[in-house]
Amino acid sequence: MKVAIIGGTGPAGLGLGARLAGAGHEVAIGSRSAERALEAAANVLALAGQGRVTGGTNDSVIPPADVVVLSVRADAQPETVRALAGLLDRKIVLSMANPLAVGDGRARYDGPAEGSLAEQAQQDARGARVVSALHEIRVSRFAKLDRPIDSDTIVTGDDDDAKGPVMALCRDAGVRPIDGGPLSNSRYVEAFVAVLVSINFRYKAGVSYRITGIPNA
Amino acid sequence: MKVAIIGGTGPAGLGLGARLAGAGHEVAIGSRSAERALEAAANVLALAGQGRVTGGTNDSVIPPADVVVLSVRADAQPETVRALAGLLDRKIVLSMANPLAVGDGRARYDGPAEGSLAEQAQQDARGARVVSALHEIRVSRFAKLDRPIDSDTIVTGDDDDAKGPVMALCRDAGVRPIDGGPLSNSRYVEAFVAVLVSINFRYKAGVSYRITGIPNA
Repeated sequence: MKVAIIGGTGPAGLGLGARLAGAGHEVAIGSRSAERALEAAANVLALAGQGRVTGGTNDSVIPPADVVVLSVRADAQPETVRALAGLLDRKIVLSMANPLAVGDGRARYDGPAEGSLAEQAQQDARGARVVSALHEIRVSRFAKLDRPIDSDTIVTGDDDDAKGPVMALCRDAGVRPIDGGPLSNSRYVEAFVAVLVSINFRYKAGVSYRITGIPNA
Repeated sequence: MKVAIIGGTGPAGLGLGARLAGAGHEVAIGSRSAERALEAAANVLALAGQGRVTGGTNDSVIPPADVVVLSVRADAQPETVRALAGLLDRKIVLSMANPLAVGDGRARYDGPAEGSLAEQAQQDARGARVVSALHEIRVSRFAKLDRPIDSDTIVTGDDDDAKGPVMALCRDAGVRPIDGGPLSNSRYVEAFVAVLVSINFRYKAGVSYRITGIPNA
């Protein structure tokens, strides 16, 4: 698949990009700056070892993409989506950010009025086919290519045909996808990450989860 | 420990009661009717095979208990807690119900204004030491004593000294407890069960989760 990673100059773009490039996908790193995007693309390629990785401005990498990954910070995602809404029309858009307020050893869900960041993206880009996934994975873990990610990811969305490609990408990124129902369930998944962060504080760990009871998903 | 199971005449009381009795705890089944409580206690004992199981009215089983398990339905829990609030003073109280609205193949979190059923119980019984746990387990699974429960449970609460006994009981019921931080996190755990139910619909399964990344919890 052709995968555009918007705001892909950060750690998520690096690690997820390298994993997807290594799995044979064509990865395009997007940024507001074409120069920074190309720099990041070179880093992705270096990490992956081989593969097809390019870089460009966000608005240049979206049109050819089969899947557009939103890889900006939670607090920047709404503005980014609104700015790109026209280009995102009919595109499969992966929302993976978690709107959490973290401090004093605690984490709290600070979701938008729409219920979740993914639903907000769907509201702001009505023509997009928003799928929500990968919330459970700390972005820094993607870049450790030699270390298996011991996690499932719950994938929510209202367009089953859009979920399929996203679930395939999750699998290629090393994470088992579980269909978690409609996009309105994303609020529960995003919010639950606050619990995972709390557990990290308590156990000084980096935790995630696996769904039990569906061995062959 | 002495464990009182309020509203213990249902499936949760039967299975959880049998597991805890089998692990050596003194189990007291509570009900509004002493007669029904004694009947249920006999069933618990029969399922457990051996152990110490008694039954009585809710208000008679609470005073001697080390831990009081709220085993009523979510929609009945607030009224039950308010009616028993005086007796629950200083007691360790386990809240395990999930306020979900389920229908049309979907599940939605229908939590109270307090954020979660556990927090509502804490508000309604201010002197109680409320701990929230076991939300992830379908109550019918407890009664299948010969079948391991492939699940962790996230335990939340504001009183660490109250969490310890509850976590021990979870372990004795066959479920690994994970400390999930303050009671305010219970809203995320209770709400997430809506996702588990959605997954059950999609996969025609009975799913739960295991937390990865803390092997020795």
